[in-house]
Amino acid sequence: MIKTDILIIGAGPTGLFAVFEAGLLKLKCHLIDALPQAGGQCSEIYPKKPIYDIPGFPEVLAGDLVDNLMEQIKPFQPGFTLGERADTLEKLEDGSFIVTTNKGTKHHAPIVAIAGGLGSFEPRKPQLDNLAKFEDNGVAYIIRDPEVYRNKKVLIAGGGDSALDWSIFLAEVASEVTLVHRRNEFRGALDSVEKVQELKNLGKINLITPAEVIGLEGAKSLETVTVRKNGENEEEIKIPVDNFIPLFGLSPKLGPIADWGLEIEKNAIKVDNTLDYQTNIPGVYAIGDVNTYPGKLKLILCGFHEATLMCQSAYQRIFPDKKYVMKYTTVGGVTGFDGSKKEAPKAVVKSIT
Amino acid sequence: MIKTDILIIGAGPTGLFAVFEAGLLKLKCHLIDALPQAGGQCSEIYPKKPIYDIPGFPEVLAGDLVDNLMEQIKPFQPGFTLGERADTLEKLEDGSFIVTTNKGTKHHAPIVAIAGGLGSFEPRKPQLDNLAKFEDNGVAYIIRDPEVYRNKKVLIAGGGDSALDWSIFLAEVASEVTLVHRRNEFRGALDSVEKVQELKNLGKINLITPAEVIGLEGAKSLETVTVRKNGENEEEIKIPVDNFIPLFGLSPKLGPIADWGLEIEKNAIKVDNTLDYQTNIPGVYAIGDVNTYPGKLKLILCGFHEATLMCQSAYQRIFPDKKYVMKYTTVGGVTGFDGSKKEAPKAVVKSIT
Repeated sequence: MIKTDILIIGAGPTGLFAVFEAGLLKLKCHLIDALPQAGGQCSEIYPKKPIYDIPGFPEVLAGDLVDNLMEQIKPFQPGFTLGERADTLEKLEDGSFIVTTNKGTKHHAPIVAIAGGLGSFEPRKPQLDNLAKFEDNGVAYIIRDPEVYRNKKVLIAGGGDSALDWSIFLAEVASEVTLVHRRNEFRGALDSVEKVQELKNLGKINLITPAEVIGLEGAKSLETVTVRKNGENEEEIKIPVDNFIPLFGLSPKLGPIADWGLEIEKNAIKVDNTLDYQTNIPGVYAIGDVNTYPGKLKLILCGFHEATLMCQSAYQRIFPDKKYVMKYTTVGGVTGFDGSKKEAPKAVVKSIT
Repeated sequence: MIKTDILIIGAGPTGLFAVFEAGLLKLKCHLIDALPQAGGQCSEIYPKKPIYDIPGFPEVLAGDLVDNLMEQIKPFQPGFTLGERADTLEKLEDGSFIVTTNKGTKHHAPIVAIAGGLGSFEPRKPQLDNLAKFEDNGVAYIIRDPEVYRNKKVLIAGGGDSALDWSIFLAEVASEVTLVHRRNEFRGALDSVEKVQELKNLGKINLITPAEVIGLEGAKSLETVTVRKNGENEEEIKIPVDNFIPLFGLSPKLGPIADWGLEIEKNAIKVDNTLDYQTNIPGVYAIGDVNTYPGKLKLILCGFHEATLMCQSAYQRIFPDKKYVMKYTTVGGVTGFDGSKKEAPKAVVKSIT
C-alpha cells in the first residue's frame, strides 16, 4: 500500500505543479497516470509543439514545459505510479481514501486531487476479431519500453507522427520493421516523412501502402499478420511478425472516474470554484482541464492556480488546528524533502570604513 | 485622450499578462503605472531576486520574468503611461470610463482592470521642514532618468540596496557623489557593499557616516544640504549640491483608488471570484495582489489566472452579441497587432513512394 498526503490522479502539468505547492506546505504527493511517463498530453500528444500562453514564456515546447516542471518539483520527491489507470475510489471510515489501479496497486491518502485532464488517453484500436487474444501477447498500442522490440520483427500500422517516429526509431532496434498505412500519404512533421522515405529507400523499413491489417494469427502469441494491399494490385499477404503495434492515436475518456459518485457535467467534474476546487465528495478535489465551473477555461495556467488553492485547502483539512502562514519563495526560499535548499542570496550588513 | 479597450492600472506581472490574454481576443490594452518602468515590484523592489514559484521556472529572477512578459506581449503593442498615478475614475453615461492621472493624462476605455498590486509605491520621505519646496527642484525620491544627474553634484541618503546601487551608478555619471547614512553599516548585496567601499577608497564616492541630513537650503532650487555627522566628532557640515536623493525605500499605498467607490476589505478590492473578478462597479475588474476574495493568495501565478478570466468577461461586455470560441495557441498560433504571426510548424501530408 502506497501512502501519501495528497494522491494526485493525472501527471500532466497541473498535477505536477500541485506537487510543488504541496511541497511548500510540507505535504507529500504521489501521482498515478495511465500513460507510461509524466507530462500528460504535453508529453504524449504534442511534446515538440510550442505553447505560447504559458505566462513568462513567449514560447515553450510542451515537452520542455514538462521537463521544467519535473525539475521544479524534484526537491519534493513525488512518487509515481505510471502506466496504470486509477480504477476505484473507496472512502474509509476515517475520511481517508484508497485508490486502486487497473493493475491492483493500492494508494492510501487523506486527500485525492483529480488532475486527469481530458481523461485517460485510451488508444484507438483496429477492428479485428481476435485482437484481445493477442493483447500483451504481441499486440501493443503504446510503446512503453522500445527495448522490448530489440531484434524482433515488428509491424506498425498508422499514418501519423507516432507511426512515423516509432518506425524510424525501431528501424535501429528491431530486426525488421514493416509500416502499413491505408493511404500513400502520411501526415506528420516534414522531417519525419522524409526520414521514413530515406529508410524505405535503404531497405530498413518495409513500407506497404495503401494497405490495412485484416487478420492476426498465432497459437498463443502473435505469429503472422494478414495485410490486404488495396489499390490496383489488390492482394493479401501473410507477414511473419513478433509484434503488431497499431498507432491510430489516443482518445481521452473520463473512464472509471465517472463512476466514483462525483457530480459530472459535460464530461467534466463539477467543483466549487468559490473556494478550493473541491468536488461534491469532501476531500476529493478536481483541478485543471478535468473540472468545470462557471467561466471555466481549459488552460494550463488556470490549472496552476487551481492546484495552488487546492493545496491550501488540503492543508487545512489535514491540519484543521494549524494556522498556515504563507511565505513568499523569494523571501523564505524552497526547502526540499531531500534536504536541498534554494534561496535568494542574503543581504549582508557590513560597515564601509 | 488615450483610447483603448482595456485600461489596466498597474504594470506588474499580472497587468502585463492581461495584455497577452486580451490580445488573443483582439482587445487592445493600455497600462498606467506610477513607477517609471513596467514590472511593478519585480522591477522596482527585487529585480535581482529569484522567484521559485512561477510554474515552469525552477528559478527565475524577478527582472527576467518581467523581461519575458514584455517579450510575450510585444505582438499586442500595449500602450504605457508610466511615472503617473491613476487618480480619478469617472463613469460616463454609456458605461465607459475616463481615468485621469496625477499629471492630468486622460484615458478612455469601456473596461478598467485594476492590477495595482499592493498599491502604488510611494517613497518614504525624510522629515525635513522645507522638503516640499524642493521637490522637482533638486529633490527626487525615485531616479527615473540617471542622465538628469550628469555632471551634477548629487547627495544620496540611505543604507540599503537602492542607495548603494545608485551611488555606484552615479559615480560614473555625476561630477560628485556623496552618500550619507545614519549608520556605518549598510545592508545590501555583498557585491554592492564591496563596490561602494572600493569607490570610496578611490575617492569617487564621498561617504559620510554615521550622519543624517537635517536641512535643505536654496533660493529656488536646492543649493546646499546640511548634514549632521553623529558619533564622537559630532559636527554639522553644509555641502553644496545640485540634487538630494533620499532612498529610504518605498511603501505601498492603495492611494486614490480607495476613493473610487469600490468595496474595500483589508486594504484590498473585493471581487467576484465566482465568475470574473469584477468589482462592485460593473466594468471595473481587480486582478492580482490588489484584490481579495475567500481563499485569496497573493501570488503572481494567481494573478495570471485572474487576468485571463477577466479578459473573457471583458470581451463579453464589449461584444455582448458575439460568441467567443477559444482556440489553443498551440493549435491557432498567436497573431500580433503588428502583423506578426507565431505558430507551431504545420504537419505535412506527403506520399512516401
